[in-house]
Amino acid sequence: MLFVFTYAQQKGTAKNPFILNPTDSTVVWGSYWSEMPPVLHIHSGDYVRVRTVLTSNPEHLIKAGVPANQIEKQLIAVQAVKDRGPGGHVLTGPVFIEEAAPGDVLEVHIDSIDLPIDYGYNGIGQGGFLSDEIFDRKTKIIHLDREKMLGHFADGIEIPLHPFFGSMGVAPPKKAGRWNSAPPWIHGGNLDNKELVTGTSLYLPVFVKGALFEIGDGHAAQGDGEVDITAIETSLIGKLHFIVHKGKSLQWPRAESATHIITMGFDRDLNAATHIAVRQMIDYLMQTKKLSEADAYMLCSVAADVVITELVDGNVGVHVMLPKYIFVSH
Amino acid sequence: MLFVFTYAQQKGTAKNPFILNPTDSTVVWGSYWSEMPPVLHIHSGDYVRVRTVLTSNPEHLIKAGVPANQIEKQLIAVQAVKDRGPGGHVLTGPVFIEEAAPGDVLEVHIDSIDLPIDYGYNGIGQGGFLSDEIFDRKTKIIHLDREKMLGHFADGIEIPLHPFFGSMGVAPPKKAGRWNSAPPWIHGGNLDNKELVTGTSLYLPVFVKGALFEIGDGHAAQGDGEVDITAIETSLIGKLHFIVHKGKSLQWPRAESATHIITMGFDRDLNAATHIAVRQMIDYLMQTKKLSEADAYMLCSVAADVVITELVDGNVGVHVMLPKYIFVSH
Repeated sequence: MLFVFTYAQQKGTAKNPFILNPTDSTVVWGSYWSEMPPVLHIHSGDYVRVRTVLTSNPEHLIKAGVPANQIEKQLIAVQAVKDRGPGGHVLTGPVFIEEAAPGDVLEVHIDSIDLPIDYGYNGIGQGGFLSDEIFDRKTKIIHLDREKMLGHFADGIEIPLHPFFGSMGVAPPKKAGRWNSAPPWIHGGNLDNKELVTGTSLYLPVFVKGALFEIGDGHAAQGDGEVDITAIETSLIGKLHFIVHKGKSLQWPRAESATHIITMGFDRDLNAATHIAVRQMIDYLMQTKKLSEADAYMLCSVAADVVITELVDGNVGVHVMLPKYIFVSH
Repeated sequence: MLFVFTYAQQKGTAKNPFILNPTDSTVVWGSYWSEMPPVLHIHSGDYVRVRTVLTSNPEHLIKAGVPANQIEKQLIAVQAVKDRGPGGHVLTGPVFIEEAAPGDVLEVHIDSIDLPIDYGYNGIGQGGFLSDEIFDRKTKIIHLDREKMLGHFADGIEIPLHPFFGSMGVAPPKKAGRWNSAPPWIHGGNLDNKELVTGTSLYLPVFVKGALFEIGDGHAAQGDGEVDITAIETSLIGKLHFIVHKGKSLQWPRAESATHIITMGFDRDLNAATHIAVRQMIDYLMQTKKLSEADAYMLCSVAADVVITELVDGNVGVHVMLPKYIFVSH
């Protein structure tokens, strides 16, 4: 007789992180939602190695030219999910972070991002920025050279890869209900912000107990604006470090890369999204750098860049990039 | 008896360019206009060393803290100009380029930019992006360290300088009349595009015989967006190389830097300006790189960045940056 003792992993470290792979029972199809049952419980300080599947399905990829034997088994597995919508993204999670409570800030540090497959696609969607004037709804499979980190767009056109997760977010406030995975908002979500590469920390406001973090929509490369509604869409494996900051408040997602502070705004209207992102940077400078409001505004004018993150996600996104090198010590 | 023969300079070369300094008879106060008498006639291929005065006046600068003996004599001289408006920029020119005719493209290559004075200012204007919520109409004098190329914003905050001319343009179509120098448009003008540094070529459509190029609004540094309506405003000296391209057509200003192709759009509406800039990049890729419309659109989505140039000039500006390194030869 054999006694098998199984021990649930207690801690996810940098060397031995929790592993979260996409299956039909570990993904959410198309929403961020306060009532979604978590698939992994962790603590602040834990690391998780998470895999995400690209935003497509086996039939579509095969039709576009991917050999059937190169379709990931994970992408096939998640097709069994019945409870779908309102959005179309397959997001891995939710992850419940024990210490996270409404009013806290969840930091998600992106420790590493790897490319598990050697292809991605770009597809012109109905929701693209020029969908009422460019009608070719073409899908292009793009080979990813993972040695050279280049995406082969066409002969003579090679795109340097800078993988990042298009969607990272927490459950929005309970009253927002089952929030479509497409429009980014105060909870993060479909940010499609190409700055969120390895080495970056994303800061998200927490609205529900445990935060309920989800992640997906991997991109191998993207231009700011994401004009045709897709990047180089691919599957990703990321190692994430979760840290709960108690007693800090945040209105909108914010990020910090090796080189920049990044504030964000989202709204149906581009001007309104811009207003939020600029205001957030002024608030950051007042709170963190103790500048007066006028000085913060002036510093943005002379040193911060206002960039259109994406034009295509229902809420459009704008981010403001402030270079950290302007702050010098004496 | 002494006979003095004066010879008008025939040619402006890289080593011996035409010199154009701002005086009350060599500047235009506040407009781009098809009927403005030129102050210098040159040929395609000529170089011009041009100086511009910052967008302010001696009284305002002294009040803001500039010692009276540091006010440029050129800025004092141009105050004698009586014929002003509708805008407020003091632009050096117009320069008449003999070969330029309507339908041509004028290339202005920025050979060098120097800082003739060691200060600039940033001032919060009524026309700033947040002028209805930040009411401190403060002006800050910013010392420019021309050795280290840093602008001293405050103790512990040093802004790397990247001088560029905020305003470069030609006369708009005759029917547009005396065009206010504030809103950038098809003729260029107040582009406020911080990418237009030394080494960059700006391409402008020509609308009138001779093109009537004007330049000014020097900036020592600026963030994309220029949110408070000013950069680090300063005087500049630029060496420009003018080249007329016959039989090429262009709808909107375009630029090429060492690293990027840059298309631009301007409109009262931010979304409309974005549409123009993205469309211009697609057109560029179709014309120059012979891509199909769908491929050009896709390439923008995965590799081109959509950036808000400025939010404050009446027409807002958006530019699209396409990195040249994606085009590789075999």
